[in-house]
Amino acid sequence: MDISSPTRTLAPLKIVTSTLTVRTGGHLEVHDLTDQVASLPGLDEVAQGVVLLHTLHTTTALCINEAQDALLEDMQALLRRLVPERGDYRHNDPAVSDCNRANAWSHLAAVLLSHTLQIPVEQGRPVLGTWQRILFFEMDGPQTRRIHVQVMGA
Amino acid sequence: MDISSPTRTLAPLKIVTSTLTVRTGGHLEVHDLTDQVASLPGLDEVAQGVVLLHTLHTTTALCINEAQDALLEDMQALLRRLVPERGDYRHNDPAVSDCNRANAWSHLAAVLLSHTLQIPVEQGRPVLGTWQRILFFEMDGPQTRRIHVQVMGA
Amino acid sequence: MDISSPTRTLAPLKIVTSTLTVRTGGHLEVHDLTDQVASLPGLDEVAQGVVLLHTLHTTTALCINEAQDALLEDMQALLRRLVPERGDYRHNDPAVSDCNRANAWSHLAAVLLSHTLQIPVEQGRPVLGTWQRILFFEMDGPQTRRIHVQVMGA
Repeated sequence: MDISSPTRTLAPLKIVTSTLTVRTGGHLEVHDLTDQVASLPGLDEVAQGVVLLHTLHTTTALCINEAQDALLEDMQALLRRLVPERGDYRHNDPAVSDCNRANAWSHLAAVLLSHTLQIPVEQGRPVLGTWQRILFFEMDGPQTRRIHVQVMGA
Repeated sequence: MDISSPTRTLAPLKIVTSTLTVRTGGHLEVHDLTDQVASLPGLDEVAQGVVLLHTLHTTTALCINEAQDALLEDMQALLRRLVPERGDYRHNDPAVSDCNRANAWSHLAAVLLSHTLQIPVEQGRPVLGTWQRILFFEMDGPQTRRIHVQVMGA
Repeated sequence: MDISSPTRTLAPLKIVTSTLTVRTGGHLEVHDLTDQVASLPGLDEVAQGVVLLHTLHTTTALCINEAQDALLEDMQALLRRLVPERGDYRHNDPAVSDCNRANAWSHLAAVLLSHTLQIPVEQGRPVLGTWQRILFFEMDGPQTRRIHVQVMGA
């Protein structure tokens, strides 16, 4: 293992908050938000820091991975295989649940993924590897979805 | 995609650390910690920031999702299906492991979930969507569990 | 639930960035990075804060759990069971994908885990429970891998 030379900042804290809205078109789909995140308010004011993305919904998720089309289909197939949509879920049973969307699988897939991302920022840009893209999973669409965004740094 | 108008803060950094203790009563259970987190020390001193929850155990997890009772049962059933408690695990084999709890499934379920949450804070309150609740998964209880909490902001 | 007495800091923000390089030797393996992370640049300058680890690759992952050898084998077996290497993946199909590594399973396993960790720092040390270790998952090795590290605090 090697450790590179570090860079240093010493400054007062800056925080910029905004909301990113995504209108989804399908029941299950993956959106690549990388370009939108790169143009978020406040990023260009931060030499070093972190951008926190926090979806405000319980049937969506955020993930960083490659955005190759065939791979995005594989991700959706994986979720459907691990959490079958037509499984025997109590959340979908009107006798014990007041939910009328029968969307247990959407919640459970969200639990296997994550509702949040924290991405380091350097010189006003999110730090991402060559193949890394910021992916948003809609799992109970179509809906209008909101992601709370917080840029913190100096 | 829309991006709302951002708000801005420029101030020195404030950090408040505390420990949240949870006494669990079952082997596998889910606790809703949302109300306890909302009353954590330091939150009301932070206009904008982030609260970091970090469970100190390897057989527990933190997650944000809906706390509907039937859905919490579905989450536990999902974990038991993906990681059967009586699976053929080397960690449970006295010939290669000095663990005497036979709790491999608890560790593996924790690996599929996450040990940590970072939640944005606005005006002293965690930012959560309508149905979002802060869930703590006990997966090898009953035990007394500790969550390290750090509020950072300005 | 109990909440312990908090500690407080009020100071300007400090950020120290570095890169941690890991050379992996196998196709699927788990490295314990805990000792390397504990000696990262900047940690000893931070009384309170957070260390953000962000792998720059889409076929690796970071996780906190116990590093017992038999358990690490169980983790790898779990990933191989949930995401079979020889599954029927579109990402591996030359007709719809220009990827020549046939590594769909590596991406999908990464999606089930996480590319990032945020660990609280107290008195220059990462806050970890008794059995918690910082684990790095190589899932398409051997390769030279880079983890972006950001220490933020005061």
